[in-house]
Amino acid sequence: MEEGPTLVRSIFGVDPLDEFSVFVSDWIMERTQGLDHVEIEAKVGTLIDRQTNMRLQLPVLTETAIDARALGVRFESNMPMKQHRSFNQLLNELVHYSSGMEGARRVFYKHVHETDSFHDEVLPTGEHVHLRVTRDSKTQQIKPGGVVAKKRIDDLNVFCPMRMYDFRISISTETPMPPPPENSVPTFVREKDRLSYSLQDFQVDLTQVMLPHREQEPIHELEVEIKQADELVRWAQYTRNSSETREEWTQLEDHVLVLLNNIRLLIRNASYQGAAQDA
Amino acid sequence: MEEGPTLVRSIFGVDPLDEFSVFVSDWIMERTQGLDHVEIEAKVGTLIDRQTNMRLQLPVLTETAIDARALGVRFESNMPMKQHRSFNQLLNELVHYSSGMEGARRVFYKHVHETDSFHDEVLPTGEHVHLRVTRDSKTQQIKPGGVVAKKRIDDLNVFCPMRMYDFRISISTETPMPPPPENSVPTFVREKDRLSYSLQDFQVDLTQVMLPHREQEPIHELEVEIKQADELVRWAQYTRNSSETREEWTQLEDHVLVLLNNIRLLIRNASYQGAAQDA
Repeated sequence: MEEGPTLVRSIFGVDPLDEFSVFVSDWIMERTQGLDHVEIEAKVGTLIDRQTNMRLQLPVLTETAIDARALGVRFESNMPMKQHRSFNQLLNELVHYSSGMEGARRVFYKHVHETDSFHDEVLPTGEHVHLRVTRDSKTQQIKPGGVVAKKRIDDLNVFCPMRMYDFRISISTETPMPPPPENSVPTFVREKDRLSYSLQDFQVDLTQVMLPHREQEPIHELEVEIKQADELVRWAQYTRNSSETREEWTQLEDHVLVLLNNIRLLIRNASYQGAAQDA
Repeated sequence: MEEGPTLVRSIFGVDPLDEFSVFVSDWIMERTQGLDHVEIEAKVGTLIDRQTNMRLQLPVLTETAIDARALGVRFESNMPMKQHRSFNQLLNELVHYSSGMEGARRVFYKHVHETDSFHDEVLPTGEHVHLRVTRDSKTQQIKPGGVVAKKRIDDLNVFCPMRMYDFRISISTETPMPPPPENSVPTFVREKDRLSYSLQDFQVDLTQVMLPHREQEPIHELEVEIKQADELVRWAQYTRNSSETREEWTQLEDHVLVLLNNIRLLIRNASYQGAAQDA
């Protein structure tokens, strides 16, 4: 058995397309029609049953996308500080490990301290917008492109019964906006201490979020973002609409698969259970 | 976007191992310890909710292995005759399409008519066995290796909410036995009209089964079998036990993946829903 010939991948001669990547890509295509400034990210966390306030239990044995509304679950993107620290070490090792490689394979690292303030404003058109203003925490200067109207478009929740964490993929739009008036009072302010690791079109953010009056209980988040999501989605919409024969595996599906690869490998490297299990 | 560089598969530089193949392989390894004459096959069918007698409904959106006992479902491996005929045409096309290829990529075809009779016997040791005797329907001669004690070891049921059919992977043992005494009365007889398509270590069987007194309602089955499963599993058990560092992707995982590739591609090519939806 050891040295057998390479197996033909199926009686059809080929591998099937990865169902999960195609499913997520189709969902993205459907939900982003006509939208600009699209952002796509996946967060590590825990699916919590609203009834029990514990992690979702479901008689399935392998990873699957779930209907969160039908199941009455919410997604909690927090994790214990020691898990956050362990991801930090792992990601630092990847930076170190890849430092001798060619540019395209090298993981870059950035540490930022930011302050987000949120403002509810009414535009001259009468439209209500929820603005996020991001400042450099040290200088208190608004960052370039730091004022956006962020709108959540949709979420896709994925249950991982074999793992310590679940994940959620989110589509949102972040539309650049002019800053709110000087005298605008924020509804909410938070401090972010973020370690960003990036490789090609992907960014892994390990963030500690401090909420006002809860400085002793920071939230620890891990998310993976497709950096060029807007361009990627626009191109996919354009080619799907303009070509007669639809290509089944495009740059979009491939980016979605690499997003999934990243989030799955991070989750497989987790060693400490999520917040819901600590109780 | 069109001509972008090849994406590095993750921030770790690699693809994750396929969770589903590893899960199925681990299940096979666990359930086959100490067993000989192991058979592994996957059948196309429908997971039926015992309460409603309809196809299982579950708030999940993508393929997942399920806990059939917890969900109260049974697996029905039947399909409408027109679906069977459509698979027959598809598989014949694969034979035709691959006929000009090199030997290793060629799909071979065989048509057999067999009669199975089942006998409950008591061995000299006092053990009760369920024997299956397979004869050539035309000559009524017992086929070489045609007498076995077949024992179902375990099933793994897979729900495919995006598809018209589900599938089930089964482990069983088929231990060669001497024929039952001449005067042994079978408990049960069935006629099989089977089209076998084989490629390397895999065999796809499209079978019409005729049960006594139900000649007008033959059962139509589609299954994929790993032909060298016994040798494959024995080798995997041997290497897992003898090597200190466990290889994560072996011939077993690769054979399981090709088994899954086959069953998934067949299901994706289905056009007519299973029996439970006809009602």
